[in-house]
This record gives sequence, structure tokens and C-alpha cells, in this order.
Amino acid sequence: MALLDKIVNANDIKQIDPSDYNKLAEEIREFLLQKISRNGGHLASNLGVVELTMALHLCLHFPKDKLIWDVGHQAYTHKLLTGRRKDFDTLRQFGGMSGFPKRNESDTDVFNTGHSSTSLSAAYGFARARDLKGTDETVAAVIGDGALSGGMAYEALNNIGQLKSNMIIILNDNKMSISENVGGMSKYLNKIRVGDKYNEFKGDVEQAILSIPKIGYPLAKTVKRSKDSIKHLMVPGMLFEDMGITYVGPVYGHDIGLLVDTIEQAKTRKRPILIHVVSKKGKGYRYAERYPERFHGVEPFDISTGKALKKKEVATYTDVFSKKLLTLAKEHEELVAVTAAMPDGTGLSEFAKTYPQRFFDVGIAEEHAVTFAAGMAASGLHPVVAVYSSFFQRAYDQILHDVCIQNLPVIFALDRSGLVGADGETHQGIFDISFLNHIPNMTIIAPKNRYEMSRAMEFAVDYKGPVAIKYARGSAYYGLKDKQEPFEYGRSELIYSGKKVAIIAVGKMMEEAVKAYESLKEQGIEATLVNARFIKPLDEDMINYLAKRHDAIVTVEDNIYQGGYGQMVSAFLRRNNLKCKITNLAIEDQFVKHGSVEELTHMLGLDAPAIERAALSYIKKAKH
Amino acid sequence: MALLDKIVNANDIKQIDPSDYNKLAEEIREFLLQKISRNGGHLASNLGVVELTMALHLCLHFPKDKLIWDVGHQAYTHKLLTGRRKDFDTLRQFGGMSGFPKRNESDTDVFNTGHSSTSLSAAYGFARARDLKGTDETVAAVIGDGALSGGMAYEALNNIGQLKSNMIIILNDNKMSISENVGGMSKYLNKIRVGDKYNEFKGDVEQAILSIPKIGYPLAKTVKRSKDSIKHLMVPGMLFEDMGITYVGPVYGHDIGLLVDTIEQAKTRKRPILIHVVSKKGKGYRYAERYPERFHGVEPFDISTGKALKKKEVATYTDVFSKKLLTLAKEHEELVAVTAAMPDGTGLSEFAKTYPQRFFDVGIAEEHAVTFAAGMAASGLHPVVAVYSSFFQRAYDQILHDVCIQNLPVIFALDRSGLVGADGETHQGIFDISFLNHIPNMTIIAPKNRYEMSRAMEFAVDYKGPVAIKYARGSAYYGLKDKQEPFEYGRSELIYSGKKVAIIAVGKMMEEAVKAYESLKEQGIEATLVNARFIKPLDEDMINYLAKRHDAIVTVEDNIYQGGYGQMVSAFLRRNNLKCKITNLAIEDQFVKHGSVEELTHMLGLDAPAIERAALSYIKKAKH
Repeated sequence: MALLDKIVNANDIKQIDPSDYNKLAEEIREFLLQKISRNGGHLASNLGVVELTMALHLCLHFPKDKLIWDVGHQAYTHKLLTGRRKDFDTLRQFGGMSGFPKRNESDTDVFNTGHSSTSLSAAYGFARARDLKGTDETVAAVIGDGALSGGMAYEALNNIGQLKSNMIIILNDNKMSISENVGGMSKYLNKIRVGDKYNEFKGDVEQAILSIPKIGYPLAKTVKRSKDSIKHLMVPGMLFEDMGITYVGPVYGHDIGLLVDTIEQAKTRKRPILIHVVSKKGKGYRYAERYPERFHGVEPFDISTGKALKKKEVATYTDVFSKKLLTLAKEHEELVAVTAAMPDGTGLSEFAKTYPQRFFDVGIAEEHAVTFAAGMAASGLHPVVAVYSSFFQRAYDQILHDVCIQNLPVIFALDRSGLVGADGETHQGIFDISFLNHIPNMTIIAPKNRYEMSRAMEFAVDYKGPVAIKYARGSAYYGLKDKQEPFEYGRSELIYSGKKVAIIAVGKMMEEAVKAYESLKEQGIEATLVNARFIKPLDEDMINYLAKRHDAIVTVEDNIYQGGYGQMVSAFLRRNNLKCKITNLAIEDQFVKHGSVEELTHMLGLDAPAIERAALSYIKKAKH
Repeated sequence: MALLDKIVNANDIKQIDPSDYNKLAEEIREFLLQKISRNGGHLASNLGVVELTMALHLCLHFPKDKLIWDVGHQAYTHKLLTGRRKDFDTLRQFGGMSGFPKRNESDTDVFNTGHSSTSLSAAYGFARARDLKGTDETVAAVIGDGALSGGMAYEALNNIGQLKSNMIIILNDNKMSISENVGGMSKYLNKIRVGDKYNEFKGDVEQAILSIPKIGYPLAKTVKRSKDSIKHLMVPGMLFEDMGITYVGPVYGHDIGLLVDTIEQAKTRKRPILIHVVSKKGKGYRYAERYPERFHGVEPFDISTGKALKKKEVATYTDVFSKKLLTLAKEHEELVAVTAAMPDGTGLSEFAKTYPQRFFDVGIAEEHAVTFAAGMAASGLHPVVAVYSSFFQRAYDQILHDVCIQNLPVIFALDRSGLVGADGETHQGIFDISFLNHIPNMTIIAPKNRYEMSRAMEFAVDYKGPVAIKYARGSAYYGLKDKQEPFEYGRSELIYSGKKVAIIAVGKMMEEAVKAYESLKEQGIEATLVNARFIKPLDEDMINYLAKRHDAIVTVEDNIYQGGYGQMVSAFLRRNNLKCKITNLAIEDQFVKHGSVEELTHMLGLDAPAIERAALSYIKKAKH
């Protein structure tokens, strides 16, 4: 790592001799591969932007210039080039370096990202602020072709065309979201990429003109603008031009020299410019090149074989969902499935293969996904929208306005609900109860284990209104197999009937609650254990019943306290003058950083010992 | 109204002789003008689509065919032509006909709308469902050029291009949202509209070819496709074509014959087709043509003068906001203002005139608005995003993910918070506490009167984090002028110190609470009256203080109960074992239909008598 050793701080890359650029790129790839194969992380996307990131760092001056990474999981090389090499040993670990850009980590991270399609809006904000303040920093955003299918990217493009000053948009086109891309824009980009002979020829001419120092750009420009009609013939990217944004490209994304020249020229223009960079996801590591989706986000793996070090032992909730949906789809012809660019992640790949006509991947477009589903539901179908909880936030208005006001039968399969771990603040699914619970007509179910997950899906398929089923990331609980009280709308499930203290657990928290229950039992304390099952509507009869027969209730959920389950129960008790005491274990008013789910569960006081302590506090009090 | 009398049910228009179409259009305009001038409603947009709606009703068969109106406030002619003529006397009134499409009103309203940019997603859902079911109804959506600036419309277009069957998109281009349009798409449409001589000529040729029965369409198609390069020269709308959607137009929106021919031909294609209709907002009523923004949504007015019948007496909260912002902007250079296509409605017009460089109208694009503001805030500016509460729902993820995680200083001026009245379910601002209160780092203020509104703005400008100020539609309360306790972060305000019962009011509900307080006083009962002021963070000291000195607390808010202020107070009491009883007056789990704000406040049990009853119930109990 001879070259990498020379890069200690931001801008140090500028001291590297151009003849060494490719060697440096190799070192960076090797470094990333070593670190990610050991600790896990986002691989394919980072390997794809090594040269692009180097070029940006050669052209921009940090921290003066502002660089914003859409989504942000591809910013590893950026982190490496800005003094965070050592921190890769703690990448995505509790207390360690985040896998996403964070303003509190470095002044070269100017805007936190995580969810898709936000970078253009943010960068436009930086550009407008610069112009108002009269400073002259360069503002650049890097956005993938997948993120470009998100509506807010278009809302931003629609504005950026009005800018009378410089702003650089790097469209990093790897023909992928996490999965393969879909949609009109994707087809359009492909058309540009492929071109026809004539276009290729003209493109070469253009590149040749562009490469003339200083005058290349204006010259090419003159040639291009000479006749509007001719322009259409020779310039790809008219769609962007039509929106007022100068298009340059396509540019090969692994040629540092070409990238540097293009970015340097783009910096000089008093206009918004989109540079269309075509790159290869997973570049430089054969397994990642071949299976970019599998190597999108990885657990530790063996570099020589590409295989995960730890075998996946037990089935996840996603697996249970995936399998059960197939079974249900056989009997229910009205079932259709919708994903926003994540057929694999959400477990819909099998469904897509078996029922291609009933499967819809709408691209990274959660808002459209929900209203599209509403349209199908209004038309007599029963759509299942499978989505990660934190990404579902983007569709809040559509859930309320298009599904719930009309009380349409749409099933929301909320994967990664609760704590998700290593991706941190932007990806935790800890708000879903709070943003869904107050919407009239919504029903929310949190199954306690793998068996109940299937029962919940059966219930939802028979129910004639919106239902959200929330389930956790990772292995699906095998415990409490014999506890399978039939589903009844709005009814919680009494697991064990005890005395003094009743523990009510929401979804995955049941695993911790069972441990606490068993530990209490070993101490001779028979607590009551309840599975909330339905979050909305609240099972008021059950709460009433528990309150009248216990000194205290302990609720446990991996959701924010405000607007959550526990708060609802507390308020219910007070409103109804029930004297039963209560402890609400939930996430108090804070965003939750990265770390393992176990660490976070412990830190937040939601694990079995915390539940046990809460329960014991009432038992001991009662003894005095 | 000789012709209109013949139209009793849907499809009756097909019996009208074509030579009478223009006369019928006139009758419809006259009818709408009479009704809206008397009862208020959306005028300009409805006058603009009379011929278009007639043409659609001549070409489509109801209820078999599916017609979806984006936003939906322009569906009056549709309602008139589908058997709802009599209901216009109760338009937008409590218990009367809605001003928007409603599935429960007619089987010709297939999808409820209200918020912008949802129609394409919904229509795509109907089209896909049709194809799956193997039926052959026509699916059409009418979307304005303003709504086309919303990101979800683009997400839908991005999908619709893949459709291998028919779907008709009517782009109703009146060059306006509620205000004048902005952005790249708008410029682009203008370019198409204006065209050049050559395009106009080619357009004429095209229209001529198109007008040949049966073969016109395929012929025009062949000519168009003959050479891709030529196509760019002669066909406008390449942006849509590039996305896979056939573009037809522009078509004059007030020529029924031309519209009918175009729609009939479009129906025969096995592809998604966009018909670009150019219409005039306010068409046929000179005042509305001249001032379409003023005649967008109107109160009753005098047809002959165009003037409102009822003079606006007192300043609204919007007026207070507007004026105060100007004052603050003079001292605070870092203040900038952002609107999503509603400079007038949100009171930013004066600011825009005074500080054009610091004012940004981003189009109908609430998501982009918020993240764009976040970008400016991260760059040292202090943005004020002024937006109606119900439209703010669309930016939930951006508020949480882009503003609050980074704790950026963005001020959200939430106009029309609480009950809004005649627009009904889709427009009530009754969810904002619930969807903001659980977001860490957010601060929420609800000023009790006009004076406090100004103080709240001063506070927000000095505060270094996200602040939402929520205020009601309509006149700003003059009462409690002498109650101006200085602002302190997170502190409620004790208005009157009394005994037994404490009433805590949120924002506008203070007006009702004061009336209840006074009525109680007349009965010799001295209640305590508190202004919540800060919703988040909750003033726990105040609640503690009140709970310990009173038998009961009554909270009042025009927000949904779940996730709202009262629930939070109830839960706080229970969690802290405070024995004080509580009644939470709030909106229980339901959507709220249209009606006057007074009627709705009464119906929901939030008015002064309801508050008084709640308070008295504790006084009487105490006496026993």
C-alpha cells in the first residue's frame, strides 16, 4: 500500500503522480476488499466508483468544495481519501465509523445521506446558498441511475435547470439500483449508452473537441448549438437538455484521466451540468462484477471463493414471507406484489418468477408504489407492497391519502421493522408504529414468531382494508411454537397467565420478553406474558383485563416511545382511571446510530435483563 | 338551461346533437358560475376544463371506463354530467356534495383525489388490473402541468412507458399550478406550445393526417417513425417519447370536436398515450381569465364585479406570518423562504417581491422543498418552508431523514393546521402533531393568538434546529392580548391560575377554551387555563405542577388523538403515577369530511360547550 500510505489527509491525493493513478486505484480496491471481506459492508457499489471518487478528489478542494453522495453507501473511497483509513477497522460497528457520510465524522462530509434520491435537492441548496453568499466553491452531487427513478430527484432536476451558475451532477450509471433497473428513464439511458454508429462517431468527434485544453468546451458547445435540429441528431441526453441541464457524456467511469478532464471542464461552466458516467458495479472483483446484487451489502466473506464465512443458519422473516406469499398466491388470484427496486431484499424474487404478470418492480419509487397499489386495489385486486420500514417513510402521504382514506385492501409487508443494526440512523425501522398508528382505517400487526408471521399474512389476505405487517430483520423466532391462538381482529394473545406483573411484547421483542419471563420464573416469580399482536387497533379489553389483575404492566417495543405502543397503553390506563402502574420500554426521543442489533437493544434498555429489572421493580415494591 | 336539462345521468351527454356542444358548454359555464358565486368553491380550474370534460364524457362509457382526476378540484363538470346537478346546492357544505371526486358519491368517481400528482400512479394501477383481469375498459387520467412537477407523477411516467396496452394521459396544460408554474418541465412545455414555424407547419400536416378516419393514426405514426432523426425535427414532446409514452399535441382545449377526435383515436392504440391539451384557466369568465390565481378557490362573489360578497374583516394567521417574516428578513440576512407552488396561499408573495434572490418557488414538490431547504441550512442559511399542513405530509421522510437527523435549522411554517373546512378529508391538517411529534430534534410550537404567532417566529429564527410553527386557517385570534409571557424553550404558558380543573389548549383551540373558561367563571367556577404553546418538547414541569394542584386536566386540540398532545399528557401522567384525572378532547380515530370549521369543531366535540362539559364533569364529581 505504498501509495495509499502517502494519503493521510483530504487533498493529499493531489500529490500523487498521474502515472500512479491506476496503481492507486488498485491499492484502494485491495484495501476495500480486505476490509469489507472481514467486517462486511457495501462492496459492489464502492468498487464501482473508485476511479470516479479519485477524479473528484483530484478536481475538488476540500473542505471548500461540497460533494454530496446520493444514498451514501458508496462513499468508502471518499472516506479513505479524507483521513479515515484507520477507521475502516471499525466500519459500521458500534461506536465506530459509519458506512454513510456523516457531518460529525469529517468536514468533507457536508450532508448526511442514506435514503435514495436526496442528493440533487441538497446540492441545489448548497449551490443557491453559495450564490447568495457570493462565494465560489464547487458543488457536486453523485447520483446513481437507480436513484434517478425516485421522484424527488426529478423534482430537483426540474428546479436545477433554472440555475444560472455552476453545479455538477455526476450521474453514475451502472445499470443497477440494488437490483437491475426498470422504467422509462432506465431505457432512455440505455439508448444513450448504446447509441448508433452515427452517434458514436459524433461522440468521438465531440470528445476530441472537448479534449482541446481551454477552448475545447466552448468550441464543442458552439458546434452543438449551431443548429437545434442537428443537436438532436448528435447529442445524446436531450431529455436533460430539455430540462435546462447541459449533458456531457457518456464518459467511461474507470478512466481517471478522462474523468478529471471532464470534471475540470464542467467546473468552468456557469450552468448546471450533468456528466453521464458509465461504470461497472463490483469493478475489479470478479464475483462482485458477476453478481452485483449479491455483493451489494455483504457479511464477512472469503475473497478467494466469494462465499460468506458464516453460513446463514435459520430462515429469516423475509424467507417466511416469501414462501407464504407463494402459497397464498396460488389460492388467491387477486394477490399481486409490488416492490420498489428490491425484489431480492424483500423476498419477492420467487413470486416474480412464478407469477411474472402479477409482479411489479416500480423502481426506487415508494410513493408511486403505494398509490399504484391503491389503484389496483380500487380495481378489485389485492396488492402486497413489500418494503423496508425506513424506506416506507417516504410514502407516508400516499398511505394516508390514497390507501387509508379510501380504506382500500392493500397489504404492507414491512421488512426490517425495528432496529436494523449496521446501517445506522437513516435505516432504523423504529418509527413505523408512530407514523402508521394515527392513520384511521389502518391495521397494524406485529407477529411474535415465524408461525404467527404466516397467520398474519392469512389474516391480511382475508381482511378488506389496509394492513401493515411489521417484522424484524434477521432470523425468524422459533420459540413459542405451541402458542398459536387463532387470529381475531384487534385481539392480543395471552401467552402465560401469571400474577402481579404483565409483560406485553411487540413483535420481535417477544424473544427478549420470553427470556425475561423464564428468568423470573426461575426466581419463583410467575409473570403474565402477552403478545400484543395487533398494535392498531389496541386490544382495550386485554389492557383492561391485565390492569385489573396486576400491579403493573411492562410494555416492550423497538419503536420510538412517542406515538408508539407503550405510550398508547399508558394513555389508555390514565384516560380510563385504571390504577395499574406501567413501565414503557421503548426508544426514547433519539435517533439510533449503527451497531449490532444486540448492542443497540442492550444500549436502549430493551433486552431481557432490562425487561426483568422493570418487572422486578414492581415485585420488590409490592413486597415492602 | 334547455340542454343541461336533458342530462340527468351519466352518458346522457351522448344524446346531445354535436351542433349543440358549444351551447351546452356555455350552459355549463353559466351553471358553474351561478353555483360557485353563491356557495364558493374552485372556479378557474373548472371553467378551464368544460370542453375537455365534455369530450371525455362523449368518448368514455361510464361506469365501465375509468377516469381519474388529478387533485380533483376541477371535476365539477364531471359531477354535473354524472347525475349530481341538484347536489351543487350543497357543494362543499356539511353533509353535502364534496368538492372532490369521491367513490362513495358516484360509481363514475373511481378514485378519490385531493393532493397533487397521484392520478398517474392510480390510473396505471387501473390499467394493470384491467390487463390482468382481461377486461377492456378505457383508463384515463387528467393531470395538470402543475401537478406534473410533483415527483410521483414522474415516478409513474417512468413506469407507464413499459405498458404494452392502452392508457390515456390528458396533460391539461394551463400554464398554472395554483400560481404560475416554474421549472424545467414548465419551460419545456412552453417550448412545445410555442414551437417554431417549421414545427407548426409539421404539426398542421400531422393533424391533417390524423384527421383521416381509421388510417390517420397509423399513417401519422409511420411517417413519424420513418426516421428517428426526423422525428426529433417534427415531433414535439420527445421528452415523453423518450420515456416510452406516445405524445400527441398540443391540442386546443376548447375545441370539443378536435378533442373528441383525438381521444377516440388515442383509445384505439395499444400503448400509453399522452394528449397535450392547452387550455385557459378561468375560460369564459373575464375576471377569472385575468386573475386565475385569485379565482382558484373563492368565497361567494358578485358575478358582475368579480368582488367577494363578504369583505375579509380580520387579518389571518397567514397575514401575520407574511408581515412578520418581512420584518425578520430585514434583520436576518440568512433567512430565505421556500414555497411549493403557493406563494400567495402561504403569504410569501410580499417576501418574494422584496427579496427575490432569497425566495424560492420549487413547484408542486414538497419533498424537494424540504431537502433543498436542508441543503441551504447545512450551508449556513436559515430557510423558512411555508406549506399547508396536509400537503406537508408528503415530505415526512425528508423532514425526518434530511432535516431532523442532521438537526438543521429549518423553520416549517405550517399553515392550515387543524380543521380546514370545505375541502374535506384530504385537506384537513389534523395529523401534523402526530407525524412530527415522534421525530427526534423536532420542536413544535402552536401559538395561541396573533401576537404569539409573531413571538413564535422570533423564537424560531433564534433557534438552531428544526422548528414547526402550526397555525390555523382563517382569522388570527385577537384575544388574550395582554397574555404575553416571554418565550422559553419547551415552556407552556399559565394564562389563568384556578382550582380543581386545568384546561390546556393547543393553538387555535384557545379561542374555544377561553369561551369555556369565561362561561365557567360566570358559574362561579375558577378553572386554570394553560396555553400548551410548545407541543414538543412537552412541558413536563407544567404538567406535574397542574397534576398536583388539580383534580383533573382537560386537553383540547384539533388534531387526531393518537400521537397527539392529549395522549402524550395522559401517558405522562400514568407513567409518573400522577393521580390527576384527564379528559382528552381531540379527534378520535377517523377522517373528517367537509363542512365549515365551526360545524366540524362542534361535531367533533372540540368547541367551548364541549370543553365546559368536560370541565364540569369533574367539578360535579368533586362535589359529591
